[in-house]
Amino acid sequence: MSDSIAPKTNPGNFFEDFRLGHEIRHATPRTVTTGDVALYNGLFGARFAVQASDAFAAKIGYPRSPLDDLLVFHMVFGKTVPDISLNAVANLGYADCRFLKPVYPGDTLNSVSEVIGLKENSNKKTGIVYVRSRGFNQNGEAVLDYVRWVMVRKRDEAAPAPGEKVPELPKSVEVAKLGLACPPIDAAAYDTVLAGSPRRFGDYKTGEKIDHVDGITVEEAEHMIATRLYQNTARIHFNQFAESKGRFGRRLIYGGHAISLARSLTFNGFGNAFHVAAINGGRHVAPLFAGLTVFAWSEVLERAELPDRKDVGALRLRTVATKDRPCADFPHRSGDDYDPAVILDLDYWVLMPR
Amino acid sequence: MSDSIAPKTNPGNFFEDFRLGHEIRHATPRTVTTGDVALYNGLFGARFAVQASDAFAAKIGYPRSPLDDLLVFHMVFGKTVPDISLNAVANLGYADCRFLKPVYPGDTLNSVSEVIGLKENSNKKTGIVYVRSRGFNQNGEAVLDYVRWVMVRKRDEAAPAPGEKVPELPKSVEVAKLGLACPPIDAAAYDTVLAGSPRRFGDYKTGEKIDHVDGITVEEAEHMIATRLYQNTARIHFNQFAESKGRFGRRLIYGGHAISLARSLTFNGFGNAFHVAAINGGRHVAPLFAGLTVFAWSEVLERAELPDRKDVGALRLRTVATKDRPCADFPHRSGDDYDPAVILDLDYWVLMPR
Amino acid sequence: MSDSIAPKTNPGNFFEDFRLGHEIRHATPRTVTTGDVALYNGLFGARFAVQASDAFAAKIGYPRSPLDDLLVFHMVFGKTVPDISLNAVANLGYADCRFLKPVYPGDTLNSVSEVIGLKENSNKKTGIVYVRSRGFNQNGEAVLDYVRWVMVRKRDEAAPAPGEKVPELPKSVEVAKLGLACPPIDAAAYDTVLAGSPRRFGDYKTGEKIDHVDGITVEEAEHMIATRLYQNTARIHFNQFAESKGRFGRRLIYGGHAISLARSLTFNGFGNAFHVAAINGGRHVAPLFAGLTVFAWSEVLERAELPDRKDVGALRLRTVATKDRPCADFPHRSGDDYDPAVILDLDYWVLMPR
Repeated sequence: MSDSIAPKTNPGNFFEDFRLGHEIRHATPRTVTTGDVALYNGLFGARFAVQASDAFAAKIGYPRSPLDDLLVFHMVFGKTVPDISLNAVANLGYADCRFLKPVYPGDTLNSVSEVIGLKENSNKKTGIVYVRSRGFNQNGEAVLDYVRWVMVRKRDEAAPAPGEKVPELPKSVEVAKLGLACPPIDAAAYDTVLAGSPRRFGDYKTGEKIDHVDGITVEEAEHMIATRLYQNTARIHFNQFAESKGRFGRRLIYGGHAISLARSLTFNGFGNAFHVAAINGGRHVAPLFAGLTVFAWSEVLERAELPDRKDVGALRLRTVATKDRPCADFPHRSGDDYDPAVILDLDYWVLMPR
Repeated sequence: MSDSIAPKTNPGNFFEDFRLGHEIRHATPRTVTTGDVALYNGLFGARFAVQASDAFAAKIGYPRSPLDDLLVFHMVFGKTVPDISLNAVANLGYADCRFLKPVYPGDTLNSVSEVIGLKENSNKKTGIVYVRSRGFNQNGEAVLDYVRWVMVRKRDEAAPAPGEKVPELPKSVEVAKLGLACPPIDAAAYDTVLAGSPRRFGDYKTGEKIDHVDGITVEEAEHMIATRLYQNTARIHFNQFAESKGRFGRRLIYGGHAISLARSLTFNGFGNAFHVAAINGGRHVAPLFAGLTVFAWSEVLERAELPDRKDVGALRLRTVATKDRPCADFPHRSGDDYDPAVILDLDYWVLMPR
Repeated sequence: MSDSIAPKTNPGNFFEDFRLGHEIRHATPRTVTTGDVALYNGLFGARFAVQASDAFAAKIGYPRSPLDDLLVFHMVFGKTVPDISLNAVANLGYADCRFLKPVYPGDTLNSVSEVIGLKENSNKKTGIVYVRSRGFNQNGEAVLDYVRWVMVRKRDEAAPAPGEKVPELPKSVEVAKLGLACPPIDAAAYDTVLAGSPRRFGDYKTGEKIDHVDGITVEEAEHMIATRLYQNTARIHFNQFAESKGRFGRRLIYGGHAISLARSLTFNGFGNAFHVAAINGGRHVAPLFAGLTVFAWSEVLERAELPDRKDVGALRLRTVATKDRPCADFPHRSGDDYDPAVILDLDYWVLMPR
């Protein structure tokens, strides 16, 4: 193998390659289309009326149906993988994730990340990288902003740590920062019969728990099609030959797939929670594999009116997803010990019409 | 579990919840796009030229390619599931199904059903619900109208029957009612070479049987993607965890999936039958599961000229689909005893250029 | 079975049905859409920026993102199957394949083939048919032109050979014929950071070999969805019931699926090779089945400047794909003996910005 070969394929960044303050412009820009929307619908069965019907969206004040928020998230996230997490051991968390502008079919998305924290682990083999990633549309307007941190391998254990800083992150996104991606809507024109649920913002209360009842089994073809659609290149999702010899013996499903499945399940209980305004934090508690069935339940952690807005209110939800375990009794955790069936513990803000 | 929880998820309607004359507006309105069309093509391999090519459609008189009729059917049908058949034991039949207006990418569909019949079963545990369901576009124009009847569980066996009426339904749709969804076409401009079959309306005769030769194996990912695309929420199609303990031990495939597969197979024999004008009746004789291969054959039951139309003629077809059984010898039934391989017995009208 | 039945389903052409010079117009014309593009992306994970982003494409001189070249190839190829290769024993080769014009979403493609060669095999049971197939858009402009040859069964072994001629075919497409489907681009406006690779035409040299590192496992649902999307009707890809009794015991994956997977893998190494200008030849060395993982490596066979063009240069590549076998040591062949893991040996021209 000649020396000129190695650098032409992307080896990804290792822990010592990152620098505090370093800004990374990611490939590949991507025009999102109604084709992507159809495939997303086929994979997750989304039923929120605002995203499903141009006519419904137009009636309440959108120019047309915006993209599902999580589809935007996955598209922006996918681009960061080749630069940030190709050598990741684990995706540790998300914080301060805010949707800033609606995205419509025809828009082109690209992503930029800034390294905002670094911390070598005591074993010197790995370190934690904190990045703030932002998605932009073709006009350079930010549509999404979030922090994630991942544990990344070092190429060379003897290499010095490239810096040390652990950023302070909000435990949840402030209410005043919610709603930028939701235009003023005409809540009276919002037809709850067509939307599939009679319950508006005022009908939920803090502490309420809802079992979403339904379960969705995942197939290998499905999660690979989804993950490729986002141009997410993390190898562990696609290569059974390599994974058959790996830790799990099989392909690991992209964590975002579980988030989208859980979001889809929440329709049965929060049918008018049409917009994910922010993700406060999320933990992929356990891996998900093809053949398993995902269930979910949610708890209303907080209710908030948005400053200067009478059209929509915000619910802060915890949604917990499980595998092969119905959620009628709300399986969660005691202390740090999660129920063994739990795969996802997500804390996020949704908007509902008032 | 607090009392406020149960009503927030959709338990579906039980037999005693229905009332004669009750009109139900269904969620979720849905803008259909070229993305949906692409996915439908990828799943079923449709090859009818009018639906495949804008240029072909425009040449004969359509503004552009209309949606595949069955895609419209599935989209309209899917919306009715959460209200009509979430507690169904069995989907018993269809009748008087008429396509009334072409649907184009960009149109938004919604569905409304009226309860037109109710009949409690003698066991008092279930009853039959007859509904007339209609699909509308964004302008409020009806695009599809059909009756189906389903056997629905009672929540409470002691509840009185909510009414009793068995509607009279036509055994087949009258010829005079066919063709509303087909604009006048220029039959001379219809290029049979491009369309893939030299045979026009005049080349078929009553009683003729055609084996469609090809077989298509179904995968779990495929039927779930399709059924979610239609926002059909019937649980039996998606939840392997629950179904593994159920009657079949596995996920049941949406009956409409078999109809679309059968329609796709009929291209090899009826390549110019570009429009399904009506469905007279259909019976899902046996369940279909992933891993099985679907075959089909058809018989021309009737030939009819449409009043005042010289451009197209109608063929009434019986299409019978089987699983893991080629159809060279036209497997069907003797009396009520179907060949054990038969899964579908469909009676419908197609239009062909004259 | 009545006599009138057989001719209504397509039995395909047998060797003795072909005539030298015969021109065949194929069904079904097909409008390609952003829906097809999304599905193609979901199936193959394409990441070339020109095809992914309308904004990127517009910046360098395209009106918008063109379709992936191989998606065009598959669409044009698929149409030829019912007429050319329904009774094929083997797809023997491709030559002189040139992309002539970019294809955009909304264009309608159709295909025409001319029989340019025939040669009966000595066993009199089969013969080789050479066809030049061309794809056209809705304006009648040729977008693709290629030759393929297939071994086709005879219906009747006693039938005389329909002619004998073996066409002369170029071993590779002349450099002067490359680039017609690539408009003049502004190479300075081509942003290599956004595109995901810093390397332009000048950074590659003849003889260089690159292992593309990644592997992609194929699922039954994926290859069937793709192959149906192209309206390719070859039975061996879809019918497990029949194939379970066949030579391999299972469905064979369309050879073009392996080509698209390999092309997708080459992004990691040739991230700016945004356009396949020509395919010089290709050999499906061994069959591919679901469950196997595809890897690939490439060698730069030749570098060429295009006459009168300073914007792009051409690399002639050999890309070799394998199944369940990483390619760090560039597995290929010694003489005619291929490494048993090799499934594809493809020789083609790509364009890169200078």
